[in-house]
Amino acid sequence: TGCVCSLHPKKNNTYIRVSLPAVCFVWQIAMVILFGVFIRYDEESDEKGWHEFKRSHNITSNIENDFYFRYPSFQDVHVMIFVGFGFLMTFLKRYSFGGVGFNFLIAAFGLQWALLMQGWFHSLDPVTGKITIGIESLINADFCCAGSLIAYGALLGKVSPVQLMIVTLFGVTLFAVEEYIILDLLHCRDAGGSMVIHTFGGYYGLAISWVLYRPNLNLSKRLNGSVYHSDLFAMIGALFLWMFWPSFNSAITNHGAGQHRTVINTYLSLAACVLTTFAISSMGQKKGKLDMVHIQNASLAAGVAMGTSAEFMITPYGSIIVGFCCGIISTFGYLYVTPFLEKRLKLQDTCGIHNLHAVPGMLGGFVGAIVAAAATEEVYGKEGLVETFGLSGKFENRSMSTQGAYQAAGTCVAIAFGLVGGVCVGFILRFPLWGDPADDFCFDDEAYWELPEDEETIPPVLEYNNHMINKHQDTHESQFSLEES
Amino acid sequence: TGCVCSLHPKKNNTYIRVSLPAVCFVWQIAMVILFGVFIRYDEESDEKGWHEFKRSHNITSNIENDFYFRYPSFQDVHVMIFVGFGFLMTFLKRYSFGGVGFNFLIAAFGLQWALLMQGWFHSLDPVTGKITIGIESLINADFCCAGSLIAYGALLGKVSPVQLMIVTLFGVTLFAVEEYIILDLLHCRDAGGSMVIHTFGGYYGLAISWVLYRPNLNLSKRLNGSVYHSDLFAMIGALFLWMFWPSFNSAITNHGAGQHRTVINTYLSLAACVLTTFAISSMGQKKGKLDMVHIQNASLAAGVAMGTSAEFMITPYGSIIVGFCCGIISTFGYLYVTPFLEKRLKLQDTCGIHNLHAVPGMLGGFVGAIVAAAATEEVYGKEGLVETFGLSGKFENRSMSTQGAYQAAGTCVAIAFGLVGGVCVGFILRFPLWGDPADDFCFDDEAYWELPEDEETIPPVLEYNNHMINKHQDTHESQFSLEES
Amino acid sequence: TGCVCSLHPKKNNTYIRVSLPAVCFVWQIAMVILFGVFIRYDEESDEKGWHEFKRSHNITSNIENDFYFRYPSFQDVHVMIFVGFGFLMTFLKRYSFGGVGFNFLIAAFGLQWALLMQGWFHSLDPVTGKITIGIESLINADFCCAGSLIAYGALLGKVSPVQLMIVTLFGVTLFAVEEYIILDLLHCRDAGGSMVIHTFGGYYGLAISWVLYRPNLNLSKRLNGSVYHSDLFAMIGALFLWMFWPSFNSAITNHGAGQHRTVINTYLSLAACVLTTFAISSMGQKKGKLDMVHIQNASLAAGVAMGTSAEFMITPYGSIIVGFCCGIISTFGYLYVTPFLEKRLKLQDTCGIHNLHAVPGMLGGFVGAIVAAAATEEVYGKEGLVETFGLSGKFENRSMSTQGAYQAAGTCVAIAFGLVGGVCVGFILRFPLWGDPADDFCFDDEAYWELPEDEETIPPVLEYNNHMINKHQDTHESQFSLEES
Repeated sequence: TGCVCSLHPKKNNTYIRVSLPAVCFVWQIAMVILFGVFIRYDEESDEKGWHEFKRSHNITSNIENDFYFRYPSFQDVHVMIFVGFGFLMTFLKRYSFGGVGFNFLIAAFGLQWALLMQGWFHSLDPVTGKITIGIESLINADFCCAGSLIAYGALLGKVSPVQLMIVTLFGVTLFAVEEYIILDLLHCRDAGGSMVIHTFGGYYGLAISWVLYRPNLNLSKRLNGSVYHSDLFAMIGALFLWMFWPSFNSAITNHGAGQHRTVINTYLSLAACVLTTFAISSMGQKKGKLDMVHIQNASLAAGVAMGTSAEFMITPYGSIIVGFCCGIISTFGYLYVTPFLEKRLKLQDTCGIHNLHAVPGMLGGFVGAIVAAAATEEVYGKEGLVETFGLSGKFENRSMSTQGAYQAAGTCVAIAFGLVGGVCVGFILRFPLWGDPADDFCFDDEAYWELPEDEETIPPVLEYNNHMINKHQDTHESQFSLEES
Repeated sequence: TGCVCSLHPKKNNTYIRVSLPAVCFVWQIAMVILFGVFIRYDEESDEKGWHEFKRSHNITSNIENDFYFRYPSFQDVHVMIFVGFGFLMTFLKRYSFGGVGFNFLIAAFGLQWALLMQGWFHSLDPVTGKITIGIESLINADFCCAGSLIAYGALLGKVSPVQLMIVTLFGVTLFAVEEYIILDLLHCRDAGGSMVIHTFGGYYGLAISWVLYRPNLNLSKRLNGSVYHSDLFAMIGALFLWMFWPSFNSAITNHGAGQHRTVINTYLSLAACVLTTFAISSMGQKKGKLDMVHIQNASLAAGVAMGTSAEFMITPYGSIIVGFCCGIISTFGYLYVTPFLEKRLKLQDTCGIHNLHAVPGMLGGFVGAIVAAAATEEVYGKEGLVETFGLSGKFENRSMSTQGAYQAAGTCVAIAFGLVGGVCVGFILRFPLWGDPADDFCFDDEAYWELPEDEETIPPVLEYNNHMINKHQDTHESQFSLEES
Repeated sequence: TGCVCSLHPKKNNTYIRVSLPAVCFVWQIAMVILFGVFIRYDEESDEKGWHEFKRSHNITSNIENDFYFRYPSFQDVHVMIFVGFGFLMTFLKRYSFGGVGFNFLIAAFGLQWALLMQGWFHSLDPVTGKITIGIESLINADFCCAGSLIAYGALLGKVSPVQLMIVTLFGVTLFAVEEYIILDLLHCRDAGGSMVIHTFGGYYGLAISWVLYRPNLNLSKRLNGSVYHSDLFAMIGALFLWMFWPSFNSAITNHGAGQHRTVINTYLSLAACVLTTFAISSMGQKKGKLDMVHIQNASLAAGVAMGTSAEFMITPYGSIIVGFCCGIISTFGYLYVTPFLEKRLKLQDTCGIHNLHAVPGMLGGFVGAIVAAAATEEVYGKEGLVETFGLSGKFENRSMSTQGAYQAAGTCVAIAFGLVGGVCVGFILRFPLWGDPADDFCFDDEAYWELPEDEETIPPVLEYNNHMINKHQDTHESQFSLEES
């Protein structure tokens, strides 16, 4: 499609034939070595270990293997990471390959690095020096990637795949550290990751995007929008995220009533969120028409905001209230805050992660703090309270109001890590050697993908017509050139 | 896209900027209040309750929580409701946003209302005045929505989202009542909902569509069809429905052999249905070509028809015979009955729910009656018979032939509720204040959605060409106007 | 769309109005009869049987029914077969209906025939003469279809649906025999089917395609490629395959640690494969651009290659190494081997199954042999070794190196069955009565599907323009003819 190329004189800087393979090979070889040194099966996935575990725990049935408690949720989370996030980012008319393709690349890298980072911080055996992994580790690795994928949402169309690999390398690293501080040191509960995943990921992406501000991005304005069918592809992603969010929030909560209740709360909250999203979306446009961007994104905000509190006894109507508010806040964000941020704060946020992850995540952190502070033995039962908040060992005497304060502190830690980490990574990405596209070549798969010769493109027809009308030359020749283009 | 708008002089009546937000807010606030008054966690999702339940039932492992029996099926059903039904309705060339988007809206509303309605009828605690919910309630709520989503299939493209909210409000209400009559009073078995979901939903939608007959609908004829890629989107919906139908039918059947057998029966029946659908589809066209409408829809009829009997001992070959017949009947319906209904009965059924839900559902009800009547202690075992048909308590002495008669009666109840309810709701929808589109503006997302400026549209090019040829004016200006349009 | 038809003078031979319905009806009626004679529920899905089973095995909880160990994996496999394989084959610009539609048809037929064939070979009760089926049988039936669906990948766009039914009939039959030889007689382990599914299916398809070589296939060259959105549809299929491959490999492995470990190994291997696929894809193009064909296909090769060894104690880093190599080998295959095969060996392989199934499957078979030969009691534990490799009964004294040798022999059996069976079936398909398209009518849904009148097609516009410019006739008339076309 030569005619399209001619519009992009500065495309030569997107050459990644050396850098991308180099990064992929170096990091993947590092993974092989580090996995060889550190990673082993845990006692529920090791052949010998499981037989011994059953004997020592007096378990008679294989169904008690953690695998059967977690695997269905794991697969749902896996779908959210690869199809959910991936297809949600296909909404741009000419960056769908990049949306789903680079999401695939960085998630596949991120989950390997996450197993190592999370392993070192959470489950390194001090005696053997090994990390043991099981199904819960895989879920946590997927979660850890989610932080970087959220950040990708703010950068969509403006960075190279090499830059994304760097975003993910540091994103996963920062994630593991903040998660260690929040979950282990502060001893917060955050099973669905309002704080550790969404707040962190959201502010991390926003900070990077702020550092990478492109004043002339309107040169690519023609491609920063959707077409009819790209919006439908994005709807596939949005719906899989929406449907499986109950699995996301319940994937690593306590067995039994814990997982059960988390699903109910998330399900209700998400349903309520849809109605207020539709309402505000219609109110926000002069003619009352609905906007697909809101439906695809704001309807998910409730899932983000329930990440911390869904496993608590927030009550069914409490969940609905959270969803109700999130639909309003998030849709308002898309209508008014994102344009404001771009204009006043020079913050270009392609997917609006500010409204879908950063703000609802932060809200979710504080909702969690309030619900935790309000927890009583009367509602949870004595052993229920201990189990739900993990108040055993050295945290045995922590009061619920203290727990609430720590939860709130955890949210602040996540914001701080996101902002500071993002600014640092942003400056790294500004080195002029990563192959990012020029301002007039953003949101364009042409930069990194071999595109099919597409019959649907309009330009050749236009060109052809002009040719016809201006010159009235040999028809046969022109027709031939059209077929070739 | 100004040029498209000019074709629709009467579009002003689709203004929903007041009515849609009003309905969404009023109903969602009502949900908050009613959930606050009535809905609580059940003993398997309540933190304190589950600990007590385990003690009182002498359960040692969390894996016995109903959650682990039902959650994988629940998620499959959830996918069917939102992606299955939603994408099946994206087949129209310019109503895909409405198909998947309004499906999303009304399902999200419907499931909240369903939890309340079904709760009041089935699980209101007479002492506390509360409804307790668990994973099975969520499945039932999704099922209950399905009735209204089926009705939407007949109305697709011809009603406003406000009307759909009303269809759903009454649909869910009627559903809960007929379900109470059929399952509780008549004590029928209908785990997969051939009667309560599909027969009811099918006739409900047909009756509404009959009342809302539009004699001049052919003014929108140009949009009442698919394009190549919209048919592929619809195929996503169709396949997820087809694949997960075994989960749909088995989601609330008895633990153990009950769920196991239901899956096998539904799986076999659906497979057989595909072959007869392809056969009749090819035979029905002069050149022997296959029709995507049949493949997308008729191949699902077997799932509908097995809704009642899949949990019975219908035998594997019995299931295949049901599927065999359904593929034939349903494809014949699409080929001959739907055109007949439209021409003779003035019944406009956009998705052909008559052939996919109404008739196969009714058939399924009667198949269930026959299989129930034929059940013997020899085949089911004594306790198996009692468990499968719930013949304990006051139904202890019901004979199997009586049970069969009640099953048949249940089917008739479902038809009656669908037809009478649908006619009443249809007349409500005829008030001229709901923002439905004019006859020449149906099947068009332009009415309710902000559409992306789409490069793929042909009209501008045509217009441009005419302009060129007729006037031979300044080329530069014309080109500019094209880019703007 | 008359104008398109006129380009295909030889299309009359694709008339399938008699042959396709005949094959569908005859075979489906045969299924009814054979299922009636042979197929019954097994003791875990039979109502009476399960009650007796629980008593005799002293089981107290329904959760011990095999259904709860296998159902989530089964549904994932089901999605892979129908959406995964189906949508992966929608990548061609004008053969998407055929890709997903015929995949649907032959899988639905194949799984019924597979239940019979596998039943006769593996679970025919010698006393009653019946085959009993349960959830594991359904998984195996889906697996068995996969062999034929893989073969379809090589034939995509070049054969008629009737020919595909024949490919499937013989494919399933051959599969059941080679599976019996490999798993029962040689007593190999191959839970994820590197050998029995992928190696067999790959070579079966390649051999058929070799026999059906079309020297003039370049007459259809214009349609043998993708468009932007067809590549996105294919990406849906690719991602569902990639995400659910851990379920594929673990679906029928041993309960407990077996399934758990298989998931971990497959997950890691697939992640590593993605990075090397991206690396080689970028290196393989002069400008360093990525190719969607590689991303969609080569990233899956690791799942294929782990089919045998994922259930063994291959270690996490071992899995990553396998994935690392597969991404490289498979992408190289797409870049260099497929063009070579087509040019030198006259082997037209539409989807490149040589690189995704044949070679990685064969590799997987040999990796499995090595890992099996290296297994020790120290790593697996005494009972673990016996359970993992099924070394009980008459195989009690088989040494691990012998087991490894048998595994390698099994791979050779799979290759032999694929090649010999494929050549024979290929010759059957060369009879000139199956309605396959002429060389200039391949890769075109027009042959077998009623296509929607598509606004997106370019030809009418071209035709229209020529008309305008050459003749300058009455504009009004021409416009009318365009609208009609």
